[in-house]
Amino acid sequence: MSSLLNVGVIGLGRLGSVYARNLAQRVPHARLAAVADQRADLREQFAAEFSGIKVYANHLELLKDKDVEAVAIITSTSTHKEVVMDAAASGKAIFCEKPMSLSLADAYEMLHAVEKAGVFFHMGFQRRFDAGYLAAKKKVDDGVIGTPVVLTSISRDPFRPPLEFCDPKVSGGLIADMGIHDFDLGRMFMGEVSTVHAVGGALAYPEMKSVGDIDNALVNLVFESGTLGTVQLSRNAVFGYDIRTEVWGTKGSIQIGYFQHTPILVMTREGITHDVVPHFMQRFEGAYLAQIQDVVDKVRTGQPPSLTGRDAIAAMRISLAATLSCHEGRPVQLSEVDAAQPTTAG
Amino acid sequence: MSSLLNVGVIGLGRLGSVYARNLAQRVPHARLAAVADQRADLREQFAAEFSGIKVYANHLELLKDKDVEAVAIITSTSTHKEVVMDAAASGKAIFCEKPMSLSLADAYEMLHAVEKAGVFFHMGFQRRFDAGYLAAKKKVDDGVIGTPVVLTSISRDPFRPPLEFCDPKVSGGLIADMGIHDFDLGRMFMGEVSTVHAVGGALAYPEMKSVGDIDNALVNLVFESGTLGTVQLSRNAVFGYDIRTEVWGTKGSIQIGYFQHTPILVMTREGITHDVVPHFMQRFEGAYLAQIQDVVDKVRTGQPPSLTGRDAIAAMRISLAATLSCHEGRPVQLSEVDAAQPTTAG
Amino acid sequence: MSSLLNVGVIGLGRLGSVYARNLAQRVPHARLAAVADQRADLREQFAAEFSGIKVYANHLELLKDKDVEAVAIITSTSTHKEVVMDAAASGKAIFCEKPMSLSLADAYEMLHAVEKAGVFFHMGFQRRFDAGYLAAKKKVDDGVIGTPVVLTSISRDPFRPPLEFCDPKVSGGLIADMGIHDFDLGRMFMGEVSTVHAVGGALAYPEMKSVGDIDNALVNLVFESGTLGTVQLSRNAVFGYDIRTEVWGTKGSIQIGYFQHTPILVMTREGITHDVVPHFMQRFEGAYLAQIQDVVDKVRTGQPPSLTGRDAIAAMRISLAATLSCHEGRPVQLSEVDAAQPTTAG
Amino acid sequence: MSSLLNVGVIGLGRLGSVYARNLAQRVPHARLAAVADQRADLREQFAAEFSGIKVYANHLELLKDKDVEAVAIITSTSTHKEVVMDAAASGKAIFCEKPMSLSLADAYEMLHAVEKAGVFFHMGFQRRFDAGYLAAKKKVDDGVIGTPVVLTSISRDPFRPPLEFCDPKVSGGLIADMGIHDFDLGRMFMGEVSTVHAVGGALAYPEMKSVGDIDNALVNLVFESGTLGTVQLSRNAVFGYDIRTEVWGTKGSIQIGYFQHTPILVMTREGITHDVVPHFMQRFEGAYLAQIQDVVDKVRTGQPPSLTGRDAIAAMRISLAATLSCHEGRPVQLSEVDAAQPTTAG
Repeated sequence: MSSLLNVGVIGLGRLGSVYARNLAQRVPHARLAAVADQRADLREQFAAEFSGIKVYANHLELLKDKDVEAVAIITSTSTHKEVVMDAAASGKAIFCEKPMSLSLADAYEMLHAVEKAGVFFHMGFQRRFDAGYLAAKKKVDDGVIGTPVVLTSISRDPFRPPLEFCDPKVSGGLIADMGIHDFDLGRMFMGEVSTVHAVGGALAYPEMKSVGDIDNALVNLVFESGTLGTVQLSRNAVFGYDIRTEVWGTKGSIQIGYFQHTPILVMTREGITHDVVPHFMQRFEGAYLAQIQDVVDKVRTGQPPSLTGRDAIAAMRISLAATLSCHEGRPVQLSEVDAAQPTTAG
Repeated sequence: MSSLLNVGVIGLGRLGSVYARNLAQRVPHARLAAVADQRADLREQFAAEFSGIKVYANHLELLKDKDVEAVAIITSTSTHKEVVMDAAASGKAIFCEKPMSLSLADAYEMLHAVEKAGVFFHMGFQRRFDAGYLAAKKKVDDGVIGTPVVLTSISRDPFRPPLEFCDPKVSGGLIADMGIHDFDLGRMFMGEVSTVHAVGGALAYPEMKSVGDIDNALVNLVFESGTLGTVQLSRNAVFGYDIRTEVWGTKGSIQIGYFQHTPILVMTREGITHDVVPHFMQRFEGAYLAQIQDVVDKVRTGQPPSLTGRDAIAAMRISLAATLSCHEGRPVQLSEVDAAQPTTAG
Repeated sequence: MSSLLNVGVIGLGRLGSVYARNLAQRVPHARLAAVADQRADLREQFAAEFSGIKVYANHLELLKDKDVEAVAIITSTSTHKEVVMDAAASGKAIFCEKPMSLSLADAYEMLHAVEKAGVFFHMGFQRRFDAGYLAAKKKVDDGVIGTPVVLTSISRDPFRPPLEFCDPKVSGGLIADMGIHDFDLGRMFMGEVSTVHAVGGALAYPEMKSVGDIDNALVNLVFESGTLGTVQLSRNAVFGYDIRTEVWGTKGSIQIGYFQHTPILVMTREGITHDVVPHFMQRFEGAYLAQIQDVVDKVRTGQPPSLTGRDAIAAMRISLAATLSCHEGRPVQLSEVDAAQPTTAG
Repeated sequence: MSSLLNVGVIGLGRLGSVYARNLAQRVPHARLAAVADQRADLREQFAAEFSGIKVYANHLELLKDKDVEAVAIITSTSTHKEVVMDAAASGKAIFCEKPMSLSLADAYEMLHAVEKAGVFFHMGFQRRFDAGYLAAKKKVDDGVIGTPVVLTSISRDPFRPPLEFCDPKVSGGLIADMGIHDFDLGRMFMGEVSTVHAVGGALAYPEMKSVGDIDNALVNLVFESGTLGTVQLSRNAVFGYDIRTEVWGTKGSIQIGYFQHTPILVMTREGITHDVVPHFMQRFEGAYLAQIQDVVDKVRTGQPPSLTGRDAIAAMRISLAATLSCHEGRPVQLSEVDAAQPTTAG
């Protein structure tokens, strides 16, 4: 039994329960030891389905459990700072679902806390573990397309969230909430960003203006190397979930992503039709599993995390700069974001 | 002007008028010198549109025209024998649209007539001049897929012809009428056929039974080399025109054909939809043009035809054997067809 | 714990170990209670990885285990008859991987044994549980393509098995070994078969002649309803695993299957390239999981199996008739197979 | 003969000779009456191939020809102003290939000249006549995708022009030279542009810096309606010609464009490969033909042109603003371009 890593899951919402089930059933070398959630019904449902798993009403109780070696934090973003800092203080290895926090200042505080505690800390960006992105990254690194010069990354959700979740004070707004994955991919394929310029609008759902958010945005990126990127974000991919990335190089190009979900084509008088990937869990189910497997393996074998808090902060800075650019109608240097937001990171 | 080949078109029906327009406007080194058709309205329409073209009421008058060096015969199949033999007697170069004739005996007679007259004689199989089939043939010849071992050829029409044209006494029946292109492709890619086995039925349009025809058929081919082929024929591709061929080899495979007509994808809640090639002229417009260009070039430069009456007869023998197999429910050797059909070919 | 079904896996080979892992980790409501294999190394590897699972050296010991409620039999085909009959005698619910047996006589004996014992008996045909085939079946049943009239089913393996496994005395030969899935799909979409005609050859690997097997075959099917089917089998899909099915109907068509494995396109001077599904486990991983989940659910809730021994025998009769047709070069009625093979089924 | 429009082609370069051949052979109701080019060899080649066509050494001679009713001007951009103004003075109907001129001031002068002369004046943007764009426009107008909110338009050339043609003083630079088609499509689908922001670089061919040009650019557009657009331009589509446009709407999306040129897929161990549209003439051959046909039909029937000088100027203003934005690293209002460039247009 010593070869299994005992993991506790904090937060049993929609995504949290996927992590918990993956850890209980599908991740070799992991054992789901405990779960914590404030909602009694979610806790009890888990207790009934998985015997032998300890159940706690809040993260502090779970963190006191000596059997728990690592925690996966899948709570709402507004609680990330508190839970991560408590987990760091408890000395447990930490996996935290993105986004890291609501403000850059909070993120720097969290980063310092985990660095000071010396604990394992992996910020979740599951796309990096998707078979498609992994294969593309390998081909780029192998020189198949020469030198990458332009990145195009498209993220489009099939519908808008409820208005209360669109409020930029909760979500950070469209660019921060959705774009952070694309900005992370930008770093993965092209390196660090120097300048951004964004435009956007509440074009498909005018009611989003009431909470100060937008539903479509275009973000131009200039990387430190002088290469370019464009990120397209939308909440109205009404046909399904549209995630595509292109790495454009001097000797060719790689496109990642597809529309088709099940392998059937229907051919009738109306034309030839196929279905579409409906939403993120269908597209990235394997990536979520591969990522938490990576976390379990790294913690068990004492290796550093594949993605750190510094990675998460780097993507967040691009998000904040792009959001600022969209508001102010001008290009924004990434360094402006640090100035704009006083942090303890000094 | 001596560098232009003067061509006469016999038959101004739907396909004939395409040939006439191609020769008048789109085939370099050709001049449309004359047209002949029994229908006055078709003749007059042409005379009005294209000034300077001689117009005749029947093929015999056109054949007497000394200015006409070559003829393209696009009349109904039942007249092919008479027109081709008259044209051969007149000494003009001949292009004849497929199918060659209604019976193998007639075809052999025609072949002997043109061979005796020593005139140029090209039987039309436009698919051989399609950019896709040409590119595939080149790749196969270059060894890209190793040795071809199985051919799959699919021909599916978007609707059935009027019942009077389905009558096997007129059309030869589904297998002969539609399959002859696939049988010719079989020869192009795999060589000569030794045995066939066919099954079929009036499955989509039961009314076809009233004229003794079928609307779907499957034909297994065994080539003399021992390699295999399967031909799929249908009249109910209600979504469009479905023509696809696969050459299956020891080191890979080549697929020829596609569904999409215009380059647009529509993505809505109903899924992702594109249109379909509607019918043969949209699919093979370029091939018809390339074929008649080839005929003009070969005649002008005194080269032998790319496709001869012997090619047409070889494909016809497969059609007849497959039709016989479908009727009798047993495999048929190609040699049986010659025995079954007394010919002057001896 | 009473809500979990205790399953024993008999046979820990390549596919058996997938079943065992699925039951241990990925099938809700199932518990992997025991495994049995003659090879000590396979047993020990499992014991080391999964604590708390009982390990047996043969199926008889496992069948005596009172804790085991159901067995999954993934042994070599030649042992299926003995193991299934012993399992039936023990009163346990049975899942048996295809093919059922080497002879129709054996299959009938097995069927009678399980029917007499009154135990649950599900013969594995995982394609029926694939998301693509399920979605297609639903659309066909909903009338989206009108009445199905022709089925095309293609199964092509990326390489040939070792010659010793190609020996028809072991494998049943290409048509029986590979085609049984396609014949089962034929029954699923089109109903029962009346007549078959098959052609084949050792075209890509001439060395297969030394063991009396072939590597490519084409099988025409006539269903009892008069509708048609064509099955294409090959061992030389050197580019990957090529599994595609088309249901051709009076109002349209459905195509199931695809080539692409990871969602990337590489675009270089050589053209636009994507990869291919490499082999059956990558294509049907989800289907294997869904099928064993279905078995667990049906046994737990006391429902009859989704696929019975009678289904397996029906597919096997088509295989045998097609193999006979290929040998004798003539169409074969399915009823001939029963006559040819004296059985206790009388 | 009165029903034919007599057209003169001025400029017999690569594209000019396509226009001349189309008018000579493929455009119903048009007659190629005359050609003019300064190069004797090009003139003589045409005279040899097409008998009965008058040949002139410069545009002024051709414009004096009373038989010529309309001219197609396919000369180098730097001569457009002179030739168009001379043609307007001669009273002939004018088709002019894009781009209109090198400066906005020149374009306004040309516009005033043709408006004052009251002659037919059609500026060429052949994409508007492509079957794909036409079908997409119709679907958008029919409301299939709801209200368009974001346009993505990609134009990528397979290689860079010779450096002397890249010089922005000759070509206008990448953004003006290539992007004008995309900016015109932006107007076609989304309306007028208010602001642009562009970034770019000499990323694939560093030698372009020596002439002051770039090889990749991204342009964000904000339309007057508040909707958005992104244009991607590149000179290093080394795999072929990559032209794709997406109109993103509130109820769905339409994608226009495709990669595949010939309808074949090659499947080998290296993966599944198809070819690519090699360059603009293969992609837009039909569109060039349809556009000049439209011009002939409009002139013959006395209708106004489908695309005017005002359309060309509107696209040019976006090009100039985007070029300015790229140079100055800031968003640019379209009105700034008029201010920056003193014109006679007032």
